[in-house]
Amino acid sequence: MADKVYAAVAVAPERTAVQALDLPEIGEDEGLLKVETVGVCGTDVSVYRQLKEPRILGHHVIGYVAKIGARAAQRWGVREGDRVAMEEYIPCGQCDKCRTGLYRSCDFTDSKRGGLRYGNTPLHVAPGLWGGFSQYMYLHPNAVLHRMPAHVKAVEAALTLPLANGFEWMCIEGRVGVGSTVVVLGPGQQGLACVLAAKAAGAEKVICVGRRTSLRRLELARELGADEIVNISEEDLIGRVREMTGGEMADVVIDVTSGGTEPITQALHLAKKRGQVLWAAYKYQAIPAFDADEVVAKTLTIKGLRGHSYESVEMAIRLIASGRFPIWVMNSHDYPLERTHEALQTAGGRGEPNPLLVTVSP
Amino acid sequence: MADKVYAAVAVAPERTAVQALDLPEIGEDEGLLKVETVGVCGTDVSVYRQLKEPRILGHHVIGYVAKIGARAAQRWGVREGDRVAMEEYIPCGQCDKCRTGLYRSCDFTDSKRGGLRYGNTPLHVAPGLWGGFSQYMYLHPNAVLHRMPAHVKAVEAALTLPLANGFEWMCIEGRVGVGSTVVVLGPGQQGLACVLAAKAAGAEKVICVGRRTSLRRLELARELGADEIVNISEEDLIGRVREMTGGEMADVVIDVTSGGTEPITQALHLAKKRGQVLWAAYKYQAIPAFDADEVVAKTLTIKGLRGHSYESVEMAIRLIASGRFPIWVMNSHDYPLERTHEALQTAGGRGEPNPLLVTVSP
Amino acid sequence: MADKVYAAVAVAPERTAVQALDLPEIGEDEGLLKVETVGVCGTDVSVYRQLKEPRILGHHVIGYVAKIGARAAQRWGVREGDRVAMEEYIPCGQCDKCRTGLYRSCDFTDSKRGGLRYGNTPLHVAPGLWGGFSQYMYLHPNAVLHRMPAHVKAVEAALTLPLANGFEWMCIEGRVGVGSTVVVLGPGQQGLACVLAAKAAGAEKVICVGRRTSLRRLELARELGADEIVNISEEDLIGRVREMTGGEMADVVIDVTSGGTEPITQALHLAKKRGQVLWAAYKYQAIPAFDADEVVAKTLTIKGLRGHSYESVEMAIRLIASGRFPIWVMNSHDYPLERTHEALQTAGGRGEPNPLLVTVSP
Amino acid sequence: MADKVYAAVAVAPERTAVQALDLPEIGEDEGLLKVETVGVCGTDVSVYRQLKEPRILGHHVIGYVAKIGARAAQRWGVREGDRVAMEEYIPCGQCDKCRTGLYRSCDFTDSKRGGLRYGNTPLHVAPGLWGGFSQYMYLHPNAVLHRMPAHVKAVEAALTLPLANGFEWMCIEGRVGVGSTVVVLGPGQQGLACVLAAKAAGAEKVICVGRRTSLRRLELARELGADEIVNISEEDLIGRVREMTGGEMADVVIDVTSGGTEPITQALHLAKKRGQVLWAAYKYQAIPAFDADEVVAKTLTIKGLRGHSYESVEMAIRLIASGRFPIWVMNSHDYPLERTHEALQTAGGRGEPNPLLVTVSP
Repeated sequence: MADKVYAAVAVAPERTAVQALDLPEIGEDEGLLKVETVGVCGTDVSVYRQLKEPRILGHHVIGYVAKIGARAAQRWGVREGDRVAMEEYIPCGQCDKCRTGLYRSCDFTDSKRGGLRYGNTPLHVAPGLWGGFSQYMYLHPNAVLHRMPAHVKAVEAALTLPLANGFEWMCIEGRVGVGSTVVVLGPGQQGLACVLAAKAAGAEKVICVGRRTSLRRLELARELGADEIVNISEEDLIGRVREMTGGEMADVVIDVTSGGTEPITQALHLAKKRGQVLWAAYKYQAIPAFDADEVVAKTLTIKGLRGHSYESVEMAIRLIASGRFPIWVMNSHDYPLERTHEALQTAGGRGEPNPLLVTVSP
Repeated sequence: MADKVYAAVAVAPERTAVQALDLPEIGEDEGLLKVETVGVCGTDVSVYRQLKEPRILGHHVIGYVAKIGARAAQRWGVREGDRVAMEEYIPCGQCDKCRTGLYRSCDFTDSKRGGLRYGNTPLHVAPGLWGGFSQYMYLHPNAVLHRMPAHVKAVEAALTLPLANGFEWMCIEGRVGVGSTVVVLGPGQQGLACVLAAKAAGAEKVICVGRRTSLRRLELARELGADEIVNISEEDLIGRVREMTGGEMADVVIDVTSGGTEPITQALHLAKKRGQVLWAAYKYQAIPAFDADEVVAKTLTIKGLRGHSYESVEMAIRLIASGRFPIWVMNSHDYPLERTHEALQTAGGRGEPNPLLVTVSP
Repeated sequence: MADKVYAAVAVAPERTAVQALDLPEIGEDEGLLKVETVGVCGTDVSVYRQLKEPRILGHHVIGYVAKIGARAAQRWGVREGDRVAMEEYIPCGQCDKCRTGLYRSCDFTDSKRGGLRYGNTPLHVAPGLWGGFSQYMYLHPNAVLHRMPAHVKAVEAALTLPLANGFEWMCIEGRVGVGSTVVVLGPGQQGLACVLAAKAAGAEKVICVGRRTSLRRLELARELGADEIVNISEEDLIGRVREMTGGEMADVVIDVTSGGTEPITQALHLAKKRGQVLWAAYKYQAIPAFDADEVVAKTLTIKGLRGHSYESVEMAIRLIASGRFPIWVMNSHDYPLERTHEALQTAGGRGEPNPLLVTVSP
Repeated sequence: MADKVYAAVAVAPERTAVQALDLPEIGEDEGLLKVETVGVCGTDVSVYRQLKEPRILGHHVIGYVAKIGARAAQRWGVREGDRVAMEEYIPCGQCDKCRTGLYRSCDFTDSKRGGLRYGNTPLHVAPGLWGGFSQYMYLHPNAVLHRMPAHVKAVEAALTLPLANGFEWMCIEGRVGVGSTVVVLGPGQQGLACVLAAKAAGAEKVICVGRRTSLRRLELARELGADEIVNISEEDLIGRVREMTGGEMADVVIDVTSGGTEPITQALHLAKKRGQVLWAAYKYQAIPAFDADEVVAKTLTIKGLRGHSYESVEMAIRLIASGRFPIWVMNSHDYPLERTHEALQTAGGRGEPNPLLVTVSP
């Protein structure tokens, strides 16, 4: 291992510079990761555009344990050379949230309150190597690691965290299982992950919904297992779902669209009596004419959802490792470390056309 | 048993006449109930005011099995002389809803579709004795009976169905248990039942919320176990709940108010992160400025709720029978059969003052 | 429809005679089924060998609604010409078990107490057509029907009830899902159904276990999706499972073997800490040296299991209809009505060799 | 705060010496507890009798935060002067068990593998102050603290951990709630805690079972809310429970007896169909003639249980703080620090007569 590590540092809004940084000393409780591949997330793009302080972005990280302290090895159950998927959270492990398995809500993971988090911690916080767009990433004592089998393709492994959301939302929260009918509103990375998770759990009918501008993603949804797709720019959503479900409507409807408020109320219409409606996207505005009576009349359950748990990350890895689905079709672009800026621009829709899962492989 | 039975028949909107009706022959699968007490429900009042066809109202019915066919006795596990509480539903028992324990959603219980239901079936449907405001009530082969212990006071037994709603909503759906903090919006019959159910299940802090006009009911809530009450005509609800919960807010918030839309959005503010919000009252209007983002940010669960199940009725009976709570304090007025009209007027706020649980004892 | 129906009546132990029987009149609440295919169950074989009174056997029945009363049509949601799968139960629909979705425990389904049940009700109970080995079967008002899509192969449809057990035990009770590791002890019809159900729900690794004498069934398990098989006549079960699971052992272990007591204790060793052990087979003898301390030390959950629910039958039908698994490979022999005796002998191991799923198609 | 702390050190089997030990420096992540009261647990007695290396025993610890590092204060949500109840576990916070809320199974809490645990860590492991029988106890960075309200009596607070087991087993695992019927086999500290937890959650009928030698504890069970007691030295257990439950038997049966194997098989007889049987005590011997068929025929669930979770400790504290039960009646003996040896002897049945909850208050 060299003394220096090359990292693509976001130095200013939409400006990246590859810099040589020092490798830290590694104590009993910590480690160092040799980064293999990093999936670019929408959050990376947002932070990049409004960057306040320099930092290494990238938090959907796959890599190999390059160095590890003895106690860390025991805690995490890994040793040097092992391949792992990282979570973005760096939870304290000792608060009430952590004690009850809800470490994703630990205050210490909240970067707004000065908490640490991979891909969004300033360079000046020692040892600086807090992001995936780098040859090496620092493994903090509180890092959350998962073993990633050796045979998995790197570009499939890079989908671990979005797919974990899919399992958290569809299976752990939405209880999708054999025979379920599911509607996924929004065919982005999260939506496609929901399609995959629902089909993996045996859902009978998964309907993926998008617009004219996302036709290519809808086709991808089909390749990943969606039974039906609806293009709402040209089709009547409610009518089509009624038809596709023989009039029964869906057991579970999830909204992972960004922006518009319409999916919020549509989701209520799309769910069957006693069905579940899952909201996993912010709207940044009020919902006009929201009809609470529909929720009562149909005895619906609505859940607001965010993030993944240890269990859902494990489910994601196991599914990816099984090879049951052609997950690699989601990878549209892969860039070397020195082209991290382009990777971020492409993922944000300002670079090469038709991005889906964009990766950086240092 | 005489040949004739006297019943208080609702003959026109807000008009009742005591009539002598024929007692039916009882076959293998059916029976006859000697009515002891009937609690007047808000639905009785609504139907009474807009009556279309003559019928015997009253569906919170306690009585004694007067006659029963052999097969009915085996199915229901009761015999002549047994005391029972009736459910209002008369479900088919053979559809997919019934097969899965959701008989309250059985199409055959839906009076709008010509289904049968105690307290809301026209007199002309043979044998006519479909309501509790009568000396005897017909036990249809599909009736739902529960055994009621002999030692229970009649006026307490009459609260079985509202209390069953309390258990269904608080315990079975809301998972209220030891240590829970609960806010009940609306101190009517349903709200007080929620207070009772929550305390019975070990809730640590139950906060009952009403207005100036419901002060007497708020006091009653306290007698029934509420730890705190809030009069929103004079107090700041959110601030008071914050104070009462040490800033944590509530695990479960239920809205059982009639009318206004404010409780819908307030309930979201009153719930803690990952808390549950239960809606069990219609608003008949849209919710202005509903904030779905709050649901996502706090990862809340919202449930629309209606009615009770076999299990929650059993829970209600067991609690009432335990004598743990002074449920009789809820009974404000008891009328004989010939004063059924006054009972309905009092329950509807047009008769004697300060009604709460109004009963008719034929 | 003719006046007479031909049925294969079991007239004495291991003796069948095809008889012409009268078709019953059909009232408002009942119906008549044109039988398409019937799977032979182990129970049919047992009853046949120890027959007490003549009856028509066969209770895994697929057919078409030939005649139906108006009210029955409404309750069951089917009409003449519809294809259905029947459950064996004829529950009362009105007792506490039925009211809570547990109709399979309804006293009226218990043939030992004089209850009715398809495939095991004497011919002398009118109208006699209580079994599937017949051109027509009577649809009692309390029958439990499920719609079966038209495109499903009859021999696959005939597996509905065993597969429903698989879903009830693996998914509803055992909570098998994406990533689960499952050991199935016994590769009979029930065991193979468990393999199917577990894989359908996304289980990562399903290990099917049998002996030298069941090698052909173990191979079938593999065709149906089992990831690993163990032949305990030649392999060390515990060691092999340890190896196959990387030392972790299984999340869920189910015993569906008949006879020996060893699987009962082995199942405890095969389960991981906090794992589930499911017992679904009688042993008719005590378990020597049962170690309750192992249950405590590993905080295991053990469940005794029997039969299916409405939900698990629906899951089975949906999986079969999806065509995801080559279920038809399980059908080893199909007989016409006049060879029902041979079908029962083959299924019982006294007829043609290598039976698995044996069907009769009248 | 003085430089020295006095502690009752177990120096050899059944030998204690009060020693003056050094107070440690406290860093960012750790703290120091001023011990108020410690409940003596059966484990303390066992370890004391077979002591291998000197250590400070006592792990049911209530105290005040005397000193705390800034980061520890943030993680644990407490500050100097706060009163807390301690768990015995010192989990790593970063392994898969800890990440999923199962920290009681964390390898780092296992003293047999060199893990740390309050009340059972050798004195030579710095800083030595690992037990409650001491003026001060060290708060390790991984300690698990719960806030204890100031108004709670110390002797009631000392029951936090046993009562947490009661809630874990009765409520979280056994789902005891309003209307449940529960049989508790064994009226020791754990059994009485189960009685309390079940009644707190609204159980309708709690039957506590013991022998002639535990009559005083059975009486105590009644004071704590048990509805019925059975003395099996003189009464027929099965017959009495049948009588007390109107022939229905129990929803939940828990075995917390030490020694004999009979309760294991009796528990199966005492449970109703679909009931739950909970085993929370080791037998150190096989169970003769165990009948697995009874488990299948009654579709019972058996669970092996150990220890508590964060949630159940919170439930215990909330119940104790509510003052709903006269928990103080359980405290039979309280000793000052210098009489710790006598406390251990009394708790172990070799000291003063009739011990129940024995405490040491340094």
